[in-house]
Amino acid sequence: MKNYIGLDIGGTKILGVLYDEKGNPIIKRKKKTKASEGLDVVMEQIFKVVDELLEDKSLELIGIGAGIPGLVTDEGIITFSPNIPLRDFNLKKILSKKYDVPVIIGNDVNVAMFGEFKCLNRDDLKHVLGLFIGTGVGGAIIIDGKLYQGQGAAAEFGHMVVNSDGVFCGCGSQGCLEAYASKWAIQEFIQSQIKKGRKSVLSEILESGDVIKSSAIEKAYSEGDEVTVEAIDRAVRYLGIALGSLINLFNPQMIILGGGMMESMGKTLKSKIIEESTLHAMPGLMKTVEFSLSVLGDDAGVYGACQLISNNK
Amino acid sequence: MKNYIGLDIGGTKILGVLYDEKGNPIIKRKKKTKASEGLDVVMEQIFKVVDELLEDKSLELIGIGAGIPGLVTDEGIITFSPNIPLRDFNLKKILSKKYDVPVIIGNDVNVAMFGEFKCLNRDDLKHVLGLFIGTGVGGAIIIDGKLYQGQGAAAEFGHMVVNSDGVFCGCGSQGCLEAYASKWAIQEFIQSQIKKGRKSVLSEILESGDVIKSSAIEKAYSEGDEVTVEAIDRAVRYLGIALGSLINLFNPQMIILGGGMMESMGKTLKSKIIEESTLHAMPGLMKTVEFSLSVLGDDAGVYGACQLISNNK
Repeated sequence: MKNYIGLDIGGTKILGVLYDEKGNPIIKRKKKTKASEGLDVVMEQIFKVVDELLEDKSLELIGIGAGIPGLVTDEGIITFSPNIPLRDFNLKKILSKKYDVPVIIGNDVNVAMFGEFKCLNRDDLKHVLGLFIGTGVGGAIIIDGKLYQGQGAAAEFGHMVVNSDGVFCGCGSQGCLEAYASKWAIQEFIQSQIKKGRKSVLSEILESGDVIKSSAIEKAYSEGDEVTVEAIDRAVRYLGIALGSLINLFNPQMIILGGGMMESMGKTLKSKIIEESTLHAMPGLMKTVEFSLSVLGDDAGVYGACQLISNNK
Repeated sequence: MKNYIGLDIGGTKILGVLYDEKGNPIIKRKKKTKASEGLDVVMEQIFKVVDELLEDKSLELIGIGAGIPGLVTDEGIITFSPNIPLRDFNLKKILSKKYDVPVIIGNDVNVAMFGEFKCLNRDDLKHVLGLFIGTGVGGAIIIDGKLYQGQGAAAEFGHMVVNSDGVFCGCGSQGCLEAYASKWAIQEFIQSQIKKGRKSVLSEILESGDVIKSSAIEKAYSEGDEVTVEAIDRAVRYLGIALGSLINLFNPQMIILGGGMMESMGKTLKSKIIEESTLHAMPGLMKTVEFSLSVLGDDAGVYGACQLISNNK
């Protein structure tokens, strides 16, 4: 039996899944990344996940795909990862040597949204954009059915400038989409209003310093919490501006909305997002683009990684 | 001898060039489009250009490429052209039947900037963006060395929103790049300042109702005409915002700046444009992108058209 492995190497955990040749999952394994313990320990953890997936000796591994947060070059070199100690590190070479199979490494968000695209199983779709809206905003560009990565770091949708005189963004620029539409930006906005003395059902969670969950934001929004509604309306407005621009740039057949925020709120917000996009996309181009919501949740990364390697053979 | 024909079908004139198999020009012909006289007359003019190029009976025509203003589908159907009466018209089919050769039709700006890319003759470049800054703003997306056209209308760079609360654009949206960085926008800005009572060396041309030439704007700018300098600085600022966003989206290897405004002012403005882009592009991505200026002028369209068909075979 021929098999692929998909790895999703995150800042806190490494998820690995063994797939059959058709992309059906067989076994799943999870380990802590132990990023704070340094490179050697992280590599040990990655090897452990892979080795456990390969315990059945009748398997024939024919490729490994992996997604990792950070910048990954065409050659599979991780030039920078924000929360894993893997700077200028050739993970592709190491995995490929150790397991004697072809390996492809990609940016985790690129890879996850590519997984969402592939799981649609729609051969008619060639040109698709996947927007990932979570704590940050990223995504994937799919051209001719393949993941487009530029020189390794394409699809930084969060860092499109949508409002040139707008709020500052963590990247150093001003008015980036991420500064309006990410969970981080929504939380910042709600917090700023609470500081002004306004009331919100989210005050308690925010004051405790806990990370706010997308599901809590969705609940507050559905209950009509005024500050949350304002924060979401603002996020949707700028998301529509960015999507309109993206439609004018790529003339895509489909836009997939994914990430934690969309998993919680996509169904509620989809029609509003389309409405806002219509204000900025050229009418002829808006007519021919479908919008869909991601479905894989936490499995998007491993599935995308498997598809990345299996589609490259 | 095997030959290609490149056609640049514009609102006022049709330019056609016969090329040899290597892309060297052999003969050039030009006719009026006669757009106001209707579809049949326009088609006659196109045929006349092609027929004259084919007068030498020893030629063996092996393909025709054409650029045309407007929206062109993958199948070569012109769904809409702003100044030629060719709505829902299958120009590809007609030319391909009449001359019995493969034909490719593309948007004129896409095609011209593809021509600029191909004439660089740089095999190391795969992912390149071409920005065309003339009366309007458009361009071309080159991915894996090929022109990316989406569903037929990609690369509408002029209609990226750079300033969500900004000036209204002809497309119906607000704050589009074209409303800041096109020759039209620069002219509008200068005119608005003259109306306020400010002085400019361009007042006379503008008051006469004549179309202002890029070279006149360049002259006024170089002489330090205050209003013109303000207009250009504003255009460059928004161009930098758009370019920063585009670098973050495409992670390209090169950006080619073309079109009438860049032909006149590119050398003067290139370093300022790069400086402004740096403020908005992610640092790692800015480091690996080259900027270059277009060189073909009016020949970009025909050369791009020839390259479109010769690269497709």
